[in-house]
Amino acid sequence: MTGPEIDRLMTLLGRLPGLGPRSARRVALHLIQKRDAAMLPLIAALSDVAERVRPCGVCGNFDTRDPCAVCADPRRDDSALCVVEDVADLWAMERAGAFSGRYHVLGGVLSALEGVGPEDLAIPALEARCAGGAVREVVLALGATVDGQTTAHVIADRLAEVAPGLTVSSLGQGVPVGGELDFLDDGTIGAALRARRPV
Amino acid sequence: MTGPEIDRLMTLLGRLPGLGPRSARRVALHLIQKRDAAMLPLIAALSDVAERVRPCGVCGNFDTRDPCAVCADPRRDDSALCVVEDVADLWAMERAGAFSGRYHVLGGVLSALEGVGPEDLAIPALEARCAGGAVREVVLALGATVDGQTTAHVIADRLAEVAPGLTVSSLGQGVPVGGELDFLDDGTIGAALRARRPV
Repeated sequence: MTGPEIDRLMTLLGRLPGLGPRSARRVALHLIQKRDAAMLPLIAALSDVAERVRPCGVCGNFDTRDPCAVCADPRRDDSALCVVEDVADLWAMERAGAFSGRYHVLGGVLSALEGVGPEDLAIPALEARCAGGAVREVVLALGATVDGQTTAHVIADRLAEVAPGLTVSSLGQGVPVGGELDFLDDGTIGAALRARRPV
Repeated sequence: MTGPEIDRLMTLLGRLPGLGPRSARRVALHLIQKRDAAMLPLIAALSDVAERVRPCGVCGNFDTRDPCAVCADPRRDDSALCVVEDVADLWAMERAGAFSGRYHVLGGVLSALEGVGPEDLAIPALEARCAGGAVREVVLALGATVDGQTTAHVIADRLAEVAPGLTVSSLGQGVPVGGELDFLDDGTIGAALRARRPV
């Protein structure tokens, strides 16, 4: 009863992460009802991003510029490099505002099960960036999953070969800020206990 | 760190119903990463709908045709008219597949609080459709809310004046299919008991 144009829009919206058929229908109706206020500005914004945003050739971040704003910022520290799985993680690090160095987006993590090897990720590019000697510390900000930790170990081993003097660290594990012990899993509590520190 | 183009896209996505800042960010990244497979088809589908879909001049449904596919379908019953609050409700009725007549979208419900009167809705147009004499039954498929039921009563009163012989009904109330008594509110249980029927 909705016609092929609206059906197609709802199908495409329903494929977006976090949207199902019901929310896709709601979004489609909202956009049709607010054509001038919501649909046309969204089309313009999407077209603008599709046309102008590209991955940064240095770090892999998305920006209209290449190198991206983070890579081009002269105030940032060239000696520290933060390795993240994807651009979402780079943005999360930037929101936290706790890191002032440069980034390197891997584009995934190693996975034997899914056949993702080092050459499928930006690991060779990372080695090339670190071999130059300007980078003195690499922070592996990868997820605390099996694949994330495997990837961290493989990267640490490979970087030790190409840049022997490099300091390689990974994010600390423990109780999240605002977290209650009662709601934490056993692995996190164990990791927090092992990482205990004097008060 | 994301540039004004991506920021603007995330802001617009975050205003869609059901999406917040976090899901808007996820959707934006997904679209940027899958430019050819997701972003460009979505832009094309949105542009197509924005350009071609309009409200039907007869019932208020959205379609590329005017009158819409439902109004133009010769197999549907001209003598029965289903009055709904908005197009989402029309689509819900059509999905249920239980009604074979025509529709009339009000565009809202009466609300003293929000200053919505009969002339702000498609109530005069409904009177005009019913005054012709071809319509013999009107089903008021409005929400079981205070405003929905007030609207139903006002419409029933006004239709009794312009089309005296017209049958006006509203949807039955009771236990939803698959519903368990334990999870139903008192009002629904009371309505179901009043609407009891012989087994």
